[in-house]
Amino acid sequence: MKIPAGVPVTTWRVRVGYVDTDQAHVVHHSTYLRYLEAARVEYLREHGLDYRSFELDQRLALPVVEVRLRYKLPARFDDLLELKTWVAAVNRAKLRFDTLIFRGDELLNHAEISLCCIDVVAQRICSMPASLLALAPRS
Amino acid sequence: MKIPAGVPVTTWRVRVGYVDTDQAHVVHHSTYLRYLEAARVEYLREHGLDYRSFELDQRLALPVVEVRLRYKLPARFDDLLELKTWVAAVNRAKLRFDTLIFRGDELLNHAEISLCCIDVVAQRICSMPASLLALAPRS
Amino acid sequence: MKIPAGVPVTTWRVRVGYVDTDQAHVVHHSTYLRYLEAARVEYLREHGLDYRSFELDQRLALPVVEVRLRYKLPARFDDLLELKTWVAAVNRAKLRFDTLIFRGDELLNHAEISLCCIDVVAQRICSMPASLLALAPRS
Amino acid sequence: MKIPAGVPVTTWRVRVGYVDTDQAHVVHHSTYLRYLEAARVEYLREHGLDYRSFELDQRLALPVVEVRLRYKLPARFDDLLELKTWVAAVNRAKLRFDTLIFRGDELLNHAEISLCCIDVVAQRICSMPASLLALAPRS
Repeated sequence: MKIPAGVPVTTWRVRVGYVDTDQAHVVHHSTYLRYLEAARVEYLREHGLDYRSFELDQRLALPVVEVRLRYKLPARFDDLLELKTWVAAVNRAKLRFDTLIFRGDELLNHAEISLCCIDVVAQRICSMPASLLALAPRS
Repeated sequence: MKIPAGVPVTTWRVRVGYVDTDQAHVVHHSTYLRYLEAARVEYLREHGLDYRSFELDQRLALPVVEVRLRYKLPARFDDLLELKTWVAAVNRAKLRFDTLIFRGDELLNHAEISLCCIDVVAQRICSMPASLLALAPRS
Repeated sequence: MKIPAGVPVTTWRVRVGYVDTDQAHVVHHSTYLRYLEAARVEYLREHGLDYRSFELDQRLALPVVEVRLRYKLPARFDDLLELKTWVAAVNRAKLRFDTLIFRGDELLNHAEISLCCIDVVAQRICSMPASLLALAPRS
Repeated sequence: MKIPAGVPVTTWRVRVGYVDTDQAHVVHHSTYLRYLEAARVEYLREHGLDYRSFELDQRLALPVVEVRLRYKLPARFDDLLELKTWVAAVNRAKLRFDTLIFRGDELLNHAEISLCCIDVVAQRICSMPASLLALAPRS
């Protein structure tokens, strides 16, 4: 997995907490889903979409429908990690964010997270709104 | 802290997960708040109060307003823990649950968790309903 | 994804905690990795392998190298979930557990979790030991 | 609880994640223990003590022995919080950090967290080292 040429990439940084580790002295594999979620929220903010008001005002939400993570190298307590996130694909049914997680130059993990859009009031799947379709990578 | 004579006590058991540990090879101190919450939900269920319908149907909720935890001995991965929970005090303003956490005969932790009652619709503090005042320990 | 005919399946049950939910009123997508881990530990225990002593005595560990999760339906607070787990594949390099997560008859999620084996002392990848190769599904 | 005059205070900021919320639409009460831990690590770093090397090189650790939290106002998704942390007391047996958690000018929570010192190799309580005794507030 590589960052495609020309796509906008958002970098989000996090310092690994003690609570994020487990007794194997590495970051627990579930922790990355927390980090990835925060990175997507920052991606959206950088592109003019405030996820809080997306839910509260537009009454739409973006639940996760598929997760694919590959773990290459472990992160450790107090490491500074960089998550580089871009939109890999978007259509009316799905929005997929890809992320590479780095510690300095080392690539630790790959992630592909797919979201659908739901109408919070009707509690039903709906089409991605134009504001999200506009995030489609140019070819 | 001891279990007062004559109070109803609910015992809830949990097996420590790998994710619950940290790199000190013990259960992370924040994990116990998850366990304690589940123990309170079971206490209420044993006393005829389903917390899900308390929120959904009665539109009341019991947020935590104070936590006091004393950690005596660490728990470790795969330990079987027993949480013994009772109502230490209740009045119109507050409901306090006390819990002792055991591994076999060893007392690991003490907890005192105080809750208030809020009206979910009004988003305002309200009086404890009769169903909770009825949990008052007899003297 | 279906449970293959003839494979041993371990069922592990969990009641959804309040802390497991998020403000969308459903179980947060990261929570399932906690549940899945506990289900794998029980699978191993049912097959005579105590994961605690695997790490402490044999000085081996099974870190997660790949996660694939598909979320079909949301779980909610206080739901009772059943995780049905089996070994989908194992060779010297990898052990893959598949899990279906049910609420009663409803299938909520699919999971495929791949683990490798590491020598804890050398901090190096090693071959799966015979005790794990023996979990291979019969064809 | 107020910040005592003249004590050094470390400010640590965090943006509330979606995963940090629960179905009451507020930050779950257990989440603050994660935030408080990160704030203490930054306090120590600002005072020349790297907690990672404290464990790895000095072979000492600072487990939590007592937690006291009072929750005044809820935090919500995407809020920016400020944790103001200082050393309230330290002696050979205990180190106590106090923290006030703010959202802008609003005080949300109070926390008092007490730690002891253990010798990691001997797995035994030991005296606070001079580097920590030096954090004592001046009177």
